[in-house]
Amino acid sequence: MRILILGGDGYLGWPTAMYLSNRGHEILVVDNYLRRNLCRDIDVEPLFSTPNLFERARVWKEKTGKEIQVKIGDCCDYSFLKQVFQEFLPDTLIHYAEQPSAPFSMLNHNAALLTLTNNLQTTLNVAWAVKECVPNCHIIKLGTMGEYGTPNIDIEEGWIEIEHKGRKDRFLFPRQASSLYHTTKIQDTDLLWFYVRTWNIRVTDLMQGPVYGLSTDETELDDKLATFFNYDELFGTVVNRFIVQAVCGYPLTVYGKGGQTRGYLNIKDTLACIELAVINPSKPGEMRIFNQITETFSVNELAEKIFRVGKERGHNISIKRVENPRVELEEHYYNPKYTGLKKLGLKPHYLTDDVLHGIFEKVEKYKESINEHMIFKGIKW
Amino acid sequence: MRILILGGDGYLGWPTAMYLSNRGHEILVVDNYLRRNLCRDIDVEPLFSTPNLFERARVWKEKTGKEIQVKIGDCCDYSFLKQVFQEFLPDTLIHYAEQPSAPFSMLNHNAALLTLTNNLQTTLNVAWAVKECVPNCHIIKLGTMGEYGTPNIDIEEGWIEIEHKGRKDRFLFPRQASSLYHTTKIQDTDLLWFYVRTWNIRVTDLMQGPVYGLSTDETELDDKLATFFNYDELFGTVVNRFIVQAVCGYPLTVYGKGGQTRGYLNIKDTLACIELAVINPSKPGEMRIFNQITETFSVNELAEKIFRVGKERGHNISIKRVENPRVELEEHYYNPKYTGLKKLGLKPHYLTDDVLHGIFEKVEKYKESINEHMIFKGIKW
Repeated sequence: MRILILGGDGYLGWPTAMYLSNRGHEILVVDNYLRRNLCRDIDVEPLFSTPNLFERARVWKEKTGKEIQVKIGDCCDYSFLKQVFQEFLPDTLIHYAEQPSAPFSMLNHNAALLTLTNNLQTTLNVAWAVKECVPNCHIIKLGTMGEYGTPNIDIEEGWIEIEHKGRKDRFLFPRQASSLYHTTKIQDTDLLWFYVRTWNIRVTDLMQGPVYGLSTDETELDDKLATFFNYDELFGTVVNRFIVQAVCGYPLTVYGKGGQTRGYLNIKDTLACIELAVINPSKPGEMRIFNQITETFSVNELAEKIFRVGKERGHNISIKRVENPRVELEEHYYNPKYTGLKKLGLKPHYLTDDVLHGIFEKVEKYKESINEHMIFKGIKW
Repeated sequence: MRILILGGDGYLGWPTAMYLSNRGHEILVVDNYLRRNLCRDIDVEPLFSTPNLFERARVWKEKTGKEIQVKIGDCCDYSFLKQVFQEFLPDTLIHYAEQPSAPFSMLNHNAALLTLTNNLQTTLNVAWAVKECVPNCHIIKLGTMGEYGTPNIDIEEGWIEIEHKGRKDRFLFPRQASSLYHTTKIQDTDLLWFYVRTWNIRVTDLMQGPVYGLSTDETELDDKLATFFNYDELFGTVVNRFIVQAVCGYPLTVYGKGGQTRGYLNIKDTLACIELAVINPSKPGEMRIFNQITETFSVNELAEKIFRVGKERGHNISIKRVENPRVELEEHYYNPKYTGLKKLGLKPHYLTDDVLHGIFEKVEKYKESINEHMIFKGIKW
C-alpha cells in the first residue's frame, strides 16, 4: 500500500515509517521539524540527537535496501499538502502532524495559539486533501484517551448509546479533557466526524494512551535509526521520564495524591495497532474509533514499579510527592474499554519488569547525557 | 456596566450595542468588517447599505445623546484584543465576532479555513484576554442550536445526566452539527468549557436559533441606525430570506421534504435575552448554557405562514420544492427545551401574522433594491 505519514519525524512517526516500510509498504514521510524546533527553542532537547529525515532514510536504505521517501514542509500550508497528495496518491494516510505536548499548550498564549492552529489546520487540510485528491484514502488519525478525561462512567470505544426520557440515540462518547492540547484533539474528532458524515470519507480515530519505550525491531538495526527520546516535563511521557529520573538520581515526582489513572502502551504496540488499522480499513462514511491502550496504572503504581526495578539495578531512587501543578482529579473512577484492537489481532507487550529492565538498560547507556535541568520546568495550570 | 461587544457591526451586534447603550450601559464595539467584506467579495450585499461604525455611533449620539465607543481591528490579533481589554476593562464581554454563515463555510477550502481560524482564534483570544486582563469579566458567547443537530432524544439546555451501566455523570449535551460553521461553534464550546474548568472564568453560552426581523426600538429612531439585512443564501436567515423572495416574486425554495424543524426567535428577543444574561451573570467557574429560541417550526410551516401573509398583502407567491443541497435529515424528531431564559424573565415576541406583516412592510419599501441574482447561489455539500 502507498502510505503517507504526516509528522513522520516524531517519536512515533519515524518508527511507524520504518515498521511499515519493513512490511513492504511504499512510504512517504512529511514533517516540518516543529517538534525538533520547539525542543530546541524551549531547551528540552531529547536524550540523544537523531539525524534529519533525509539522513535517517539513507541509513534505512543502507541497512534494509528499502526506500522511505521524505518531504519537508508544513501541513498547515494547504497548497503544499495538496501537492503531496496529488503526487503520491496515498491509499492510507497516518496523521501524527500535531503539537503533542499538554504542558506546552498551557505555557502561554503563543503556545496555546500555536497548538490550536497547528492541530486544527492540519486536520482540516487532511480532510480537504483527501476529499479533493483521493476520496477513497483511509485516514488514520491519532487521538488520545485524554479526550475522555476521567468520567464517572465506563469509557466506551468512542461511541455511546444514550437513553433519555424514553428515547434513544447513538453519540460520540462525551469528551472533557484536562489540557488545551487534549481539547484540540476533541476538536479534531468533531471536525473529522463532521466531514465523515458529510463527504463519506473513511476515518479511523485511535484514542491512544501515553506511550513508553524507545526500541522497536527497526530502531535496533542502527543507532542512527533511533527515535526521539524526550525525558522532560513537556515532551517526555511519564514512564520514559521516570526511568530517566531514576537513572540520574532525580526523585520520581508524583503530582498530588498520585491516584491519576491512565491507560498506557508500549511503543511496539503502537506500531502493531497502526498496522492493524492500515490492513483493516474503515468503510466509506465510517468513523471508527478504538481505544489504543493495553493496561491501566495509577501514577503511584508506575512510580512503585520503576522504583522497584531501578533499585534492583542499583540506582539511588526516591519518590517525591509534589503539589499538583495541573487541574485534574487525583482520585477518580477509571474503567475504559479497549477490546477493539485486540479483536483485530493485537498481542500486547505489557509493562513487565523485563520490559522496564530493557528501557533502563538503554537509558543507562546515555546516563552522562542526562541534563537534570530539563526534567522539571514547573509548568502550572 | 462596561460592556465590550466583539462583532459590534453585525446583524445582531449593532442592535445589541444600541439596546444596551439605551439602558445606560457603557458600550465599546469592536469589529474588523469581516462580514461586510465577505458580502462584497461574494456579491451578496444586504438589502440596503448601512453607514460604517463611526458614522452609526455619531448618528446614535445625535439621536439619543448617548455614546457608543468604536474600535476597528481583528480579534484574531491578540495584541490588539489585549490592549482593548486593558484599556476598557469590561465587566461583560459579548462575543459575536465569528464568521456566521453555514453555506459560506462549505464553499471551498479557503472559506472553511477562514471560518475555522477566525472563529476559534477569536474564542481562544477572548478566554486569554479575560484571564490576563479582567478575570472576573462575564463572557457571553453566542452559540447555536445547530450545535446539537437533530438528535432522536429531547434536547436539554446544554447539559445532560447520563446513566450508563449503573453509574452516572453530567456531561455537555452531545453535539453533532450539519455544517463546518456549526462545527466550529461546537469547538468554541469545547474551548470555553475547558478554560472555565481550568481558570474559573465565567461564561454564558447562548444556543441561539435562526433570528428574524429587522426592527428594534432603536433601529426605528433613524434609517441610518438600521441593521444589516441579508436575504441571500449565504448570510440571510430563512424567514428574512423567504419574505424577500415573496416580495420580489421569487418562489419560496423549500429544500427536500421541508420537514427540517428548528427553533426561531425575533431579533427583539435576542436583545432581551442578551440583556437578561448581562444582568444575571454566571458565577466564576460556571459555564451556563441557555437554548435561545422561542418556538419551533418546520421549513414547510414557515413557507406556509409567509405564503399566507404574503398573499394577503397581494404578492404573487409560489412555493417550490428543490433538491436538498445539504446533508441533513428532512424528517426528524425535534424536542428542544428552552425554559431557562423565560425563567429569567423573557417575554417572547412570537412569529404572529402581525409580526410577519411588519417585516413585509419594511421589506416592501426596498422592493426595487432586491437583486434576484443574490438569492440563490446553488451552494451544495
